[in-house]
Amino acid sequence: MSTELPTECLELRSTLADDGIVTLAVRTTDVAAPGDDQVVVRIDAAPINPSDLGMLFAGGDTSAAIVAGDGGLPAVAVPVTAGVLAAQASRIGRAMPAGNEGGGTVVAAGSSPAAQALLGKVVGFLSGNAYAQYRTLHVSQCLPMADGTDPVAAAAAFVNPLTALGMVETMRMEGHTALVHTVGASNLGLMLNRICLDDGIGLVNIVRKPEHVQMLREQGAEHVVDSSADTFVDDLTDALRATGATIAFDAIGGGDLASVLLSRMEKVAGEQVGEFSRYGSDTHKQVYVYGGLDRGPTTLRRDFGMSWGIGGWLLTPFLAKVGPETAERLRRRVADEITTTFASSYGMQLSLADAVDPSTVARYGRMATGDKAVVTPQV
Amino acid sequence: MSTELPTECLELRSTLADDGIVTLAVRTTDVAAPGDDQVVVRIDAAPINPSDLGMLFAGGDTSAAIVAGDGGLPAVAVPVTAGVLAAQASRIGRAMPAGNEGGGTVVAAGSSPAAQALLGKVVGFLSGNAYAQYRTLHVSQCLPMADGTDPVAAAAAFVNPLTALGMVETMRMEGHTALVHTVGASNLGLMLNRICLDDGIGLVNIVRKPEHVQMLREQGAEHVVDSSADTFVDDLTDALRATGATIAFDAIGGGDLASVLLSRMEKVAGEQVGEFSRYGSDTHKQVYVYGGLDRGPTTLRRDFGMSWGIGGWLLTPFLAKVGPETAERLRRRVADEITTTFASSYGMQLSLADAVDPSTVARYGRMATGDKAVVTPQV
Repeated sequence: MSTELPTECLELRSTLADDGIVTLAVRTTDVAAPGDDQVVVRIDAAPINPSDLGMLFAGGDTSAAIVAGDGGLPAVAVPVTAGVLAAQASRIGRAMPAGNEGGGTVVAAGSSPAAQALLGKVVGFLSGNAYAQYRTLHVSQCLPMADGTDPVAAAAAFVNPLTALGMVETMRMEGHTALVHTVGASNLGLMLNRICLDDGIGLVNIVRKPEHVQMLREQGAEHVVDSSADTFVDDLTDALRATGATIAFDAIGGGDLASVLLSRMEKVAGEQVGEFSRYGSDTHKQVYVYGGLDRGPTTLRRDFGMSWGIGGWLLTPFLAKVGPETAERLRRRVADEITTTFASSYGMQLSLADAVDPSTVARYGRMATGDKAVVTPQV
Repeated sequence: MSTELPTECLELRSTLADDGIVTLAVRTTDVAAPGDDQVVVRIDAAPINPSDLGMLFAGGDTSAAIVAGDGGLPAVAVPVTAGVLAAQASRIGRAMPAGNEGGGTVVAAGSSPAAQALLGKVVGFLSGNAYAQYRTLHVSQCLPMADGTDPVAAAAAFVNPLTALGMVETMRMEGHTALVHTVGASNLGLMLNRICLDDGIGLVNIVRKPEHVQMLREQGAEHVVDSSADTFVDDLTDALRATGATIAFDAIGGGDLASVLLSRMEKVAGEQVGEFSRYGSDTHKQVYVYGGLDRGPTTLRRDFGMSWGIGGWLLTPFLAKVGPETAERLRRRVADEITTTFASSYGMQLSLADAVDPSTVARYGRMATGDKAVVTPQV
């Protein structure tokens, strides 16, 4: 046990009220002493991933954020529509922690050898409550990094890296040989591009702005398709034909992109088949929706035969499905390549107080590519 | 070999032209003598299933059918839109046979013991060219019925019976314990209802008219929900709660029914979970689309967490997936119960000439529940 361990620290908590206002507040919390298999991490950085925004703001309109709180510690309030409120009855009135992952230094450890081995190490961790200055965590939640790793570099070691690796694993497990990713220029997209280059896997990167085509090409991407271009559908078809991709991972969710993907995959599959089948090709075409940047409905035109599927994809069930050995193999690769393949970059660094500033909330709530936020709670 | 075997007979063929007109015509064809493992079936009946309409009319508008042909054998012409035409380039100009299945009597057989064993038997068969007076088929395409079976009763032994049994098998294989069927009053729906009653499986029957609620209740169905009722969503939720159904088989395809099903399954799943999860319940909810009575787009609101899937379901890949032993077990059950569990009823019997009459085409093209057509080519 370290003697420097504080008994209290600051954290963020999000509370949805039954009047449809969600309040994100800085508040004081206890730092628990570690149990035998626990460590205390001094948190230097915790990214704000798209998957964190749901817990932070309960699906509310971050562009309408206003100052809240009682004049003590800072807080921000955001309105939530009645429909979205109704779907979250089970969290009303409860102060929810947030922050899926973070990075920091182990400053105290329990008595077990596994805990003691982490003392002084820089770790990435997965916790669901990372927006805080200190957290007491089980050793299994921590991924130790090589000595000398910047704790900020360790902060995004789980969500994006394991999701990108999970996409490739899923592709293989389900019998596909190449894949499509619909947000190619995101931090996750850039990681996936590096993985596919390293592993020799065909990847179709879809981006939403012309400047992102150039960025991905500079990083070695062979197939980059701009969904804002007039030639998008033809460009996509060419890339699908060149790679043979029959599975896509989509972070957008709403609109007709999934339908277009399935339709163009079917077109390419049909080119291989001489004989007419009224049910379309036998090639199974799959889209997994793993995010919801567009919260609107998904529209499927079903002009892609009968061999198709679309479904939700989440990291946690994926890791449970592949089992501990595969999960550990993926984690080790992340730790080994945290500053190369799995490097993240941020558009803004936020103190806990910054994270509840209305104008900052409106900015990171937009989830613009290249403008990702990281919370640095020690600042 | 029978000496009565004709050398020619009548059949239907469908030809899509590059001007967007599909013509369904009665024509003369040869009757091939059987090879060693083949039999010749004199066809008494072949149903027009929804899955046959795509081959018959290439997605054209059957309400606009007009007389075609050169004054010899009768024919009918139907217009196809440019978009639908473009998707079927590989069948343009080719005279396609049609009719997935039929029933009749084996009037000639090849020399093999398997073929000889079928001589004189009433069989159901799966062939893709059943709208004809005679067909020469491999023994493996035939399912022999008990002596005395009416050949008309044997005509629908594959598509609906194996699809209904395949739904129950799929439900079990994927870990669900009860299911939803969205066209409960169809011939297939009534079979599925009888299977589920016999096997003690929870079934939520969705029907589209109040009178169909009564019909299914009279057949012993416990959960029948009318999608035209104001109380549909609540009624559906109650039935999902009562049965625990988390998988649905949908023949409608278009509209928001799949979305409503997933959403209400998620609501029921959420009632079992105390703790709030921003990703929704862990319960996997699945909809399989096996038909397209509504050809419009499928709209998914994605208000059902992240554990969900929707996809196409077809009988042939299902049978390939489960393997020959399971397929044979299902076929045996169909033959044993062809006049009870798997009995079909028809709203109209059509000669080959009737099947190409424009007003008749417009009627069976609507696929109205209770008005199913069966082609009787010997009449």
